[in-house]
Amino acid sequence: MRIGLDVMGGDFAPESIIEGAVDSLQHLSVNEKLVLIGDEPTILKKLSEMEMEPSLFDIVHTSQVIEMADHPAKAFSQKKDSSIAVGYGMLKNGDLDGFCSAGNTGAMLVGASYTVNVIPGVLRPALATVLPCIDNRNFVLLDVGLNPDCKSDVLLQYGILGSIYAKCVLGKDNPTVGLLNIGEEETKGTPTVKAAFELMKEHPEINFAGNIEGNALFRETMTDVVVCDGFVGNIILKMGEAFHHIYKIKNLKDSYFDSLDWENFGGTPIVGINANVVIGHGISKRKAIMNMVLQTRSVVHGNLAQKIKEAI
Amino acid sequence: MRIGLDVMGGDFAPESIIEGAVDSLQHLSVNEKLVLIGDEPTILKKLSEMEMEPSLFDIVHTSQVIEMADHPAKAFSQKKDSSIAVGYGMLKNGDLDGFCSAGNTGAMLVGASYTVNVIPGVLRPALATVLPCIDNRNFVLLDVGLNPDCKSDVLLQYGILGSIYAKCVLGKDNPTVGLLNIGEEETKGTPTVKAAFELMKEHPEINFAGNIEGNALFRETMTDVVVCDGFVGNIILKMGEAFHHIYKIKNLKDSYFDSLDWENFGGTPIVGINANVVIGHGISKRKAIMNMVLQTRSVVHGNLAQKIKEAI
Repeated sequence: MRIGLDVMGGDFAPESIIEGAVDSLQHLSVNEKLVLIGDEPTILKKLSEMEMEPSLFDIVHTSQVIEMADHPAKAFSQKKDSSIAVGYGMLKNGDLDGFCSAGNTGAMLVGASYTVNVIPGVLRPALATVLPCIDNRNFVLLDVGLNPDCKSDVLLQYGILGSIYAKCVLGKDNPTVGLLNIGEEETKGTPTVKAAFELMKEHPEINFAGNIEGNALFRETMTDVVVCDGFVGNIILKMGEAFHHIYKIKNLKDSYFDSLDWENFGGTPIVGINANVVIGHGISKRKAIMNMVLQTRSVVHGNLAQKIKEAI
Repeated sequence: MRIGLDVMGGDFAPESIIEGAVDSLQHLSVNEKLVLIGDEPTILKKLSEMEMEPSLFDIVHTSQVIEMADHPAKAFSQKKDSSIAVGYGMLKNGDLDGFCSAGNTGAMLVGASYTVNVIPGVLRPALATVLPCIDNRNFVLLDVGLNPDCKSDVLLQYGILGSIYAKCVLGKDNPTVGLLNIGEEETKGTPTVKAAFELMKEHPEINFAGNIEGNALFRETMTDVVVCDGFVGNIILKMGEAFHHIYKIKNLKDSYFDSLDWENFGGTPIVGINANVVIGHGISKRKAIMNMVLQTRSVVHGNLAQKIKEAI
C-alpha cells in the first residue's frame, strides 16, 4: 500500500507535516509505504535534523506550492507541479492507493473532480467524519461541510454512503442510520428533511432508525451513521471542538472528553469519488498529521472508494 | 406585575408545576403576583400538602386540559376552558403581564396567533433562548425551533429581535450580532445565509460582527446574539443538553458545565408577538418550572414585547 502525503499543505507545512509523517512510521507495517510529496531539499533537510533515514519514505519532488489563500480551481490548473496536483496525478495513475493533505481544501476538492472524478451515480460527494460516542462506539457524521444545501435524494444517498463507510472502515455490521431532525416524529422538520425521511424509511440498503435529535448526539442513544446537510454537520463538528476547548481550559480530566480532541480524528475522507482521499484540518500539527495518515490507511484498508463504486 | 402559570401543562403537571410555583415565591417581590391557572381543587390540595397558604397566589380555575399529544389548533379552539386558552384570554384582556407554560408547544403557538397576535411588521416570530458563555456572559440564540427554514429577510429581522432582547432583558448596550455560518468569510454558506450577510452588514439597527462558526459557540469569542434558522438553533440547543448530560454521567465538577443545565434556563420566550409569553420544556420539573416563572418575570421587566413593537 502506498499513501501519498502532501508535505506542502497546511498552516504548519512543511515542518509539522514531516514530523507527523515520521511519527506515523511506527504504526505502518513493512508493506505500507508513505510517499512524501513536496520540496525534496526541504524534506531531506528536515529528515536529517530528525536523524531519520530518507529511504524510510518515498520522496517525490515538486517545485510549486498551492497556498492556503490561493483560488482553488485556478491554482490547481496553473500549478501543475504542486504537491496537490502531483498527488492527484499519482492517484489517478495508480501510483498511490490513498492521498491526504491538510492544504487548501478547495484545491483538494477541485483536484478530485478534475482527476479521479466523482463515482457515476453519486449525486454529490460528502465529507464524512468519524466521531466518538460515550459508549466507546464511533459514529459517522455526514456531510460536514461540502454541501450546505442538500436535497432529499442527496440526504438519502448520504445514508447509503455513510453505511458503506461504517461497514468497511469501522467494521460495523448492518449499521443504523439516523436522520438528524428537530423532533423524533415523522412530521417534523423542513420539507427537505421530511421528504428524506420518506425516502429513507423505505430504502432496502439502509438500516433506518428514524429521526434523531441533537440531544442524542455523542450519546449511547446515537445511531452508527447520522445524516444531515453540510451546514448543520459543520456546526456540529465545530461545536464539538468548542466543547473540547472548554473542557481543556477548565482543566477537567476525562477520557471521553480527551477523545473529542479533533487532532485524534486526523482527517475526513471525501466520500463518493473514485479514490481514497482524506482532507485534514488546515491547522493540523504533528499529532493531527500522523492521525490523518493513519486515517487514510484505514480508508484504503477498508477499500472505501471501490466499495462505494460497487454499491452505487 | 401578574404572571400567569399554566398548572396543567407539561409531562409532570400538575404536581411539579405547583412545586415550582411555590419555589419561585421566595424570588418574587410583594408587587409580583403569580397566577395559577388550572384545576382549583387539585391546586388547593397540593398547596395544603405543601403547607402553603393559597392566598399567596391568585388561583384561576379551569375545567379542561390540553394534553401534550392533542392537535394544537383543534385543542386550542375546542377547549375554551383549558389553562392555555384561559391564560391567553387573560393576557389579551390585560389581566396578566406575562404567561408561561411547559405544556403543548403547538397549542401555545396557536394561542399566540389566535389571541394576542404577531406584532405588525414581524415576519416570523422566533423562540429565543439565553445560553451561558464561559466568560460568564449570556448570549441570545435565535431561532431555536419555530422556523426550521428561514429566508434571508427573516434572519436579518432575527438579528434585530435578538438585539432588542439582549438590550432590554440582558441589559447589554449595543449587543454584537453574529450570523452562524460554516466559515468566517463573507462568501461562505448557503445562498440564504450569504444574502442575510449582505442585509445584516449594512443594517443600522444591529451591531453586526459578521459570520461566526460553530467553534465560537459558548466561548469567549461569542457574540451577544447569534442568528440562525430554527433547524440549526434547535440542534445547537439540544447538543448543549447532550454535552451537559455527558458531563453529568462522567461525574465531572465544573461551574460552567453546571450552568449549561437546561433546567437553569427556565424557558424560551416567543419573540415577536404582542405579549410576553414563555414556553418551557415539556419535561420540566420543579427547578425548571421555577426558572421558567423567573424568566417570564425578566421578560416582563424588560418590557420585551412592547420594546419590539416600538422598534419594528
